[in-house]
Amino acid sequence: MAPLRIDPVAEARRHWEERWGAEPSRPMAAVTSIMRAQQVLMARLNELVKPHGLTFPRYEALVLLSYTKRGELPIGKLGERLQVHRTSASSIVAALEDDGFVVRTPSERDGRATLAIITEKGRAAARAATEDLNAAEFGLGALAADAQEGLTTTLRTLRLDAGDFVS
Amino acid sequence: MAPLRIDPVAEARRHWEERWGAEPSRPMAAVTSIMRAQQVLMARLNELVKPHGLTFPRYEALVLLSYTKRGELPIGKLGERLQVHRTSASSIVAALEDDGFVVRTPSERDGRATLAIITEKGRAAARAATEDLNAAEFGLGALAADAQEGLTTTLRTLRLDAGDFVS
Repeated sequence: MAPLRIDPVAEARRHWEERWGAEPSRPMAAVTSIMRAQQVLMARLNELVKPHGLTFPRYEALVLLSYTKRGELPIGKLGERLQVHRTSASSIVAALEDDGFVVRTPSERDGRATLAIITEKGRAAARAATEDLNAAEFGLGALAADAQEGLTTTLRTLRLDAGDFVS
Repeated sequence: MAPLRIDPVAEARRHWEERWGAEPSRPMAAVTSIMRAQQVLMARLNELVKPHGLTFPRYEALVLLSYTKRGELPIGKLGERLQVHRTSASSIVAALEDDGFVVRTPSERDGRATLAIITEKGRAAARAATEDLNAAEFGLGALAADAQEGLTTTLRTLRLDAGDFVS
């Protein structure tokens, strides 16, 4: 998508300050920044993993699977870990299976659950994509190391408060 | 969605450091933090605007329309400003029209374009939702003022680099 000619966050903040004053304009600007940063980053990350036959959400699912002891997770649990709805987790796994990156099989422990199991092809794709993402600093090359750490720290407080995890 | 029992970003970082060292683990943690913060924030913002018959993306579209001189934008332009694909912009506008918050009409200037025009009901809903969002500090109440400003500043650098806008 083409870049805008003005910063949409600065523009929104100007409108907000005119009507509502400085106080609510500060968190509005921060929230809008997070939303837009996520959008442009996702586009960039999708481009980076595309040569490996992946989208970034599919890549994240493969990485999670590759970290488990047996390379497998029930689809419901995969969705919880990725913080996406069950239907999204199912469609991510279905797309990965179409490309031979995972196979689906009924769980032996729980007859109603379906396991996603990473294949060798899936492990190879995840590894190759990771090398490219690492080399591209995950699209964050414009930020100094301390700015990157600052984001992680500030957003941890926010995630904890908003129920991403319990400490 | 239920909170996880461990911080998924810290967990990913531990795996990354073991396999790839500290350097690529820093941007990976920051990017994963942005993605997950966006997910939990969006859920919270959707809850906040729900009593007004809105979702957060629909709210954003109404606010953009309310800021224009005549309360109207071609749907294509609305999508550009919201940085969403044309099909998403169309479905946002269709949902807003179903609820009486906008009307659609062919553009007089460009016969192929469709305008979205905010209604009085749409303006009232946007105003009421804004009051609730302002009161809830857009879900960012856990962050101090300087942490909120820090996010806006850091993410501006990132958005500029990733093509959200040109300065």
